[in-house]
Amino acid sequence: MSTRIDGRSASDHRPVSIERGWSTQAEGSALISFGNTKVLCTASFTNGVPRWMAGKGTGWVTAEYSMLPRSTNERMQRESIKGKVGGRTHEISRLIGRSLRAVVDMKGLGENTLVLDCDVLQADGGTRTASITGAYVAMADAIEWGRDKGFIAKKATPLTDSVQAISVGIVEGEPMLDLAYTEDSAADTDMNIVTTGSGKFIEVQGTAEHAPFDRDELDTLLDLGLAGNRSLAAIQRDVLGLA
Amino acid sequence: MSTRIDGRSASDHRPVSIERGWSTQAEGSALISFGNTKVLCTASFTNGVPRWMAGKGTGWVTAEYSMLPRSTNERMQRESIKGKVGGRTHEISRLIGRSLRAVVDMKGLGENTLVLDCDVLQADGGTRTASITGAYVAMADAIEWGRDKGFIAKKATPLTDSVQAISVGIVEGEPMLDLAYTEDSAADTDMNIVTTGSGKFIEVQGTAEHAPFDRDELDTLLDLGLAGNRSLAAIQRDVLGLA
Amino acid sequence: MSTRIDGRSASDHRPVSIERGWSTQAEGSALISFGNTKVLCTASFTNGVPRWMAGKGTGWVTAEYSMLPRSTNERMQRESIKGKVGGRTHEISRLIGRSLRAVVDMKGLGENTLVLDCDVLQADGGTRTASITGAYVAMADAIEWGRDKGFIAKKATPLTDSVQAISVGIVEGEPMLDLAYTEDSAADTDMNIVTTGSGKFIEVQGTAEHAPFDRDELDTLLDLGLAGNRSLAAIQRDVLGLA
Amino acid sequence: MSTRIDGRSASDHRPVSIERGWSTQAEGSALISFGNTKVLCTASFTNGVPRWMAGKGTGWVTAEYSMLPRSTNERMQRESIKGKVGGRTHEISRLIGRSLRAVVDMKGLGENTLVLDCDVLQADGGTRTASITGAYVAMADAIEWGRDKGFIAKKATPLTDSVQAISVGIVEGEPMLDLAYTEDSAADTDMNIVTTGSGKFIEVQGTAEHAPFDRDELDTLLDLGLAGNRSLAAIQRDVLGLA
Amino acid sequence: MSTRIDGRSASDHRPVSIERGWSTQAEGSALISFGNTKVLCTASFTNGVPRWMAGKGTGWVTAEYSMLPRSTNERMQRESIKGKVGGRTHEISRLIGRSLRAVVDMKGLGENTLVLDCDVLQADGGTRTASITGAYVAMADAIEWGRDKGFIAKKATPLTDSVQAISVGIVEGEPMLDLAYTEDSAADTDMNIVTTGSGKFIEVQGTAEHAPFDRDELDTLLDLGLAGNRSLAAIQRDVLGLA
Amino acid sequence: MSTRIDGRSASDHRPVSIERGWSTQAEGSALISFGNTKVLCTASFTNGVPRWMAGKGTGWVTAEYSMLPRSTNERMQRESIKGKVGGRTHEISRLIGRSLRAVVDMKGLGENTLVLDCDVLQADGGTRTASITGAYVAMADAIEWGRDKGFIAKKATPLTDSVQAISVGIVEGEPMLDLAYTEDSAADTDMNIVTTGSGKFIEVQGTAEHAPFDRDELDTLLDLGLAGNRSLAAIQRDVLGLA
Repeated sequence: MSTRIDGRSASDHRPVSIERGWSTQAEGSALISFGNTKVLCTASFTNGVPRWMAGKGTGWVTAEYSMLPRSTNERMQRESIKGKVGGRTHEISRLIGRSLRAVVDMKGLGENTLVLDCDVLQADGGTRTASITGAYVAMADAIEWGRDKGFIAKKATPLTDSVQAISVGIVEGEPMLDLAYTEDSAADTDMNIVTTGSGKFIEVQGTAEHAPFDRDELDTLLDLGLAGNRSLAAIQRDVLGLA
Repeated sequence: MSTRIDGRSASDHRPVSIERGWSTQAEGSALISFGNTKVLCTASFTNGVPRWMAGKGTGWVTAEYSMLPRSTNERMQRESIKGKVGGRTHEISRLIGRSLRAVVDMKGLGENTLVLDCDVLQADGGTRTASITGAYVAMADAIEWGRDKGFIAKKATPLTDSVQAISVGIVEGEPMLDLAYTEDSAADTDMNIVTTGSGKFIEVQGTAEHAPFDRDELDTLLDLGLAGNRSLAAIQRDVLGLA
Repeated sequence: MSTRIDGRSASDHRPVSIERGWSTQAEGSALISFGNTKVLCTASFTNGVPRWMAGKGTGWVTAEYSMLPRSTNERMQRESIKGKVGGRTHEISRLIGRSLRAVVDMKGLGENTLVLDCDVLQADGGTRTASITGAYVAMADAIEWGRDKGFIAKKATPLTDSVQAISVGIVEGEPMLDLAYTEDSAADTDMNIVTTGSGKFIEVQGTAEHAPFDRDELDTLLDLGLAGNRSLAAIQRDVLGLA
Repeated sequence: MSTRIDGRSASDHRPVSIERGWSTQAEGSALISFGNTKVLCTASFTNGVPRWMAGKGTGWVTAEYSMLPRSTNERMQRESIKGKVGGRTHEISRLIGRSLRAVVDMKGLGENTLVLDCDVLQADGGTRTASITGAYVAMADAIEWGRDKGFIAKKATPLTDSVQAISVGIVEGEPMLDLAYTEDSAADTDMNIVTTGSGKFIEVQGTAEHAPFDRDELDTLLDLGLAGNRSLAAIQRDVLGLA
Repeated sequence: MSTRIDGRSASDHRPVSIERGWSTQAEGSALISFGNTKVLCTASFTNGVPRWMAGKGTGWVTAEYSMLPRSTNERMQRESIKGKVGGRTHEISRLIGRSLRAVVDMKGLGENTLVLDCDVLQADGGTRTASITGAYVAMADAIEWGRDKGFIAKKATPLTDSVQAISVGIVEGEPMLDLAYTEDSAADTDMNIVTTGSGKFIEVQGTAEHAPFDRDELDTLLDLGLAGNRSLAAIQRDVLGLA
Repeated sequence: MSTRIDGRSASDHRPVSIERGWSTQAEGSALISFGNTKVLCTASFTNGVPRWMAGKGTGWVTAEYSMLPRSTNERMQRESIKGKVGGRTHEISRLIGRSLRAVVDMKGLGENTLVLDCDVLQADGGTRTASITGAYVAMADAIEWGRDKGFIAKKATPLTDSVQAISVGIVEGEPMLDLAYTEDSAADTDMNIVTTGSGKFIEVQGTAEHAPFDRDELDTLLDLGLAGNRSLAAIQRDVLGLA
């Protein structure tokens, strides 16, 4: 495979850093960077669940994604000013929420609510995958906070696995990992792969942006993504002191 | 594979009917049924494109999906009354639009706009896949209408392929094609597969609803979906008189 | 009176068909056609009433009207996308609700709620009158469903009469029944008349679109409308097996 | 006919006063009272029409109705705070606009726009009829303003007639003119009648609130309303110095 | 100091009139004029407080400000039509509410709610200061109404002081009191001063519209405003029969 | 003066840090901290102005303020989800915009637009004053960027002065500078003071939260604020390399 603009190989992800506990307000938080993409992830832990869920002994996890207006190269209008949340924002918020719920045992969480906020401070491609990867770290800390406060049973293990996500794509015929914005714009096919730390799939979302892809290409992209996520899982373990 | 509630095998899709030209108002239309799921697809052809696209010689294709409030088992509130379009609606509208654009040569379409409306009259699982499959038929007719009116060049071939979609999932451990609502609710994994008539992928969207899935399961689901879509493509050709 | 474009006389309504029980989801439903105008009417029966009404032993009936974006000759923007329901939609929803409530004994209905959804699949004039006429059939079936389920008292007779509606107007000086879209656009005066099966008025809404009308013209229009509604009432009885 | 709470007979309207030119800002204005109902009507004259109407040599007249939050006995939430305009407000705004357009020759008005704002300062029944009656006076003055400024041709006669409106209803079996709020709440049937000064109908809107009405009752109500509007037309002429 | 367009000196406010009890619906009301600026202030008294405040024995006072669309020289679009309340409206509503709360002892008010609506019927500068000054009179009457009804304890004195407001500004280098619209538009600095009848500050809001101001200018403006408010307080006492 | 919780004296502001050029996307940016309050300020420079301003040779500066949902101790709902921007947000956005415009010569800026986004990442009191102080630094850099690109004339000096802001208040009878959140909540009087680097006032906004304040107290607060802003101006000069 050839070299990319920033010098990495096709199967390398960008440098990833995770600043755990960035916020002094939230029960869990992480400022995550995938290269120039920076996302502030906070996890808000609330004892109790929405009224319609109460009494079942199970918890709830949800997520909201948003981009600061000048996180991008050209300023975007705020969705609060427009008065409505756009389709892309909704879609990514739902993806993050589903991905995190896949590794939470709701019985183990008990009647507690976790809200993950992923606010993109700077965007250079891969904001949704960075959000999922960072939100997991924030969530892990918020769950420990809840345990310390006694809101989660001592023996409960609400977290069943870790979760991480990465993008893959075919750019000028070549499969690549973790596309930066200019690569993403030029991709024929773009795929986001969300996995558990144990290597199973939570989400596979592949889109032919400019050219339909065949079964062989799909297989190559899945291989690349699985390897990338293994690397992210190791970084998460390291940051959480589990390595 | 075992037999399902409605008697079909795991690799069968439900009976599919397409009533082409249902509407006397739209330039193209199809009332499509996948079993009890019924979607009215209309294609609105307008000569010209939005101002910001004008002068480039290329067209535009977009889609909107919606469910009638009592298409479902329990009445849902209308999104017009709520004052905003929900995340799921946005997500599906975007998916339909992307899928159809993948088989349209925008240069061949010329400066014309196609809007595909997919309104679910009755819902029993698979509304997004029925929408894509039916909208293709409506779009094909609207493009012919545009050619007859002289809005599309005689030699242009805006349609590069057909497009069809089907759901697959793992229900009680068994991979199945074209899930009805009760099957979909019980699925561990749910995947929508959009392909071209020539058998390439346009979209692959797999979600672990209750249990992460491994690479083998993914492969089985892809095989099922490809076969199902080949069958839908044959039905489309038949309805359009291309068989 | 002279002959109209579609061959009928000034005092004829268009062919009316009512497909009772079209929906497999709703407690009552009817797909009604007045010529090319087609409206899907569903009646949703819910045991119970909104909290502010509870404990009084009376029920509630309400209606919502909407047009599919391509029900009309030119595509209209969806009200869900606009983010608000337009004045005309509101006005017609309120008219349908009032008309249906006029033939329901709320004590007889008991603490149950009926929501009538009238979705115009195709529009060629008279969509509000077709909606009222079809919604009555859907409502009648939903009330029987409620009785079968035991939500309505055995001896109660919630339906006090039938309700039907038709438009009349003065086109090029001539009073006419049941205006199609092109006639409606050309009318000097346009009136909607809602009656009970026993021939009393529920609503009379006459508007001078282009020329004020005098008392004699008003009388002629009322006569036409009463006769037209007698015919619609007979069709309703026939469809419901009461003839 | 018997005597009413406020001492008038069934065929009397309440005392009507019209303070012409109340506003120092608007091109035409009137503060109209029907008993305790008080509506501030302003007419805003703008040279020019919306872009989509330009170049046709015709004008445009539109109206907006609103109630102050404490115009009523119990405070209502503002529609600006709710974020949407309610169905009733829309319906009345549209009625006022149609009624005024019925007496304006749009060619005579030329490419000018009139916006009539009817803001209810205090409500005691009949706010829509007072609005129409007062808005006519404001509009007449705004048209004269436009003529003085040279925006309307010297020989043009944009106003073809006057317009006035009154309510009638059947209360405890007795037909009555100009219902006050408590009478309106108790009415079986409620009708608003809009006429031209020459005695023709512009709008007839009758609703059976509690009991369907027959043809004889309808005739009696129409007679009452026509007589009431003749009296209002005389008051308008007097205020405008045309008597 | 020099003479102004309307003949008054720099330290004079415009003629102020307060029509107490204008509304027959509200528990307290005042139609206040500062020259051509006219604001209808109503006070709605409700026994009880919002649920989240209940059981604490304290009351609540809030305010809403709005301008009629043609209160101004050019017609403005209604905020109800825009679907959102603008920043200026919000800001002024909040200012009025804070100002009135500053003179209410919430314990003395008891569990009662006061909503002050200030609707600008005609605008010529100083609408927020007129609103505060008039709303105080409306509120004082509504509190007496609440006492008469027994909702406020006999010995309680919910009103701790009066409140009044006036604008000051520097126009062409000269400090002036109570700016009319044309003066306000030309001002380098614009300040609103809200005080208690006993001469203390509740709010001081000074803005350099075109040129920053120094400490001496600020002192002069404060002196002017205090004197102006003393005059308004005397008018309020007179209107309330306390002089 | 006594010592505060965090050890500083009543006339000290919290430690202030300004990370200039934080964003790689925006033309100017600053991450500013006032203690635990952290605001990301970006300045977006666009060549050209809104259409209604074009052709006058003058520029435009505007600002938007927002808080991340978990910047605060308890999570707040996003305004994008609520569908509307709250009054407080509007008010602060307007304040920031006015404050920055006060030090920009719009002729010198030429037909260019500056949008200042102030997004509060973490909140502990003083978010609006930190926003103004940081936005000035971002704006200064964006103006230099515009000059480098040739969008601003070589000889033009768009920036006429610096701008900085600080809060002051009376807490338990003692005047204090730069209130942290817990101090702000307990304050009787709260004032925000915006000044130019040359020591003139741009805005003075004082509010009696719990007790009206007298002239002497006002004078003390103004003194404190002027001194605090002198210190902030020195920090700004230092960060910009102008010291």
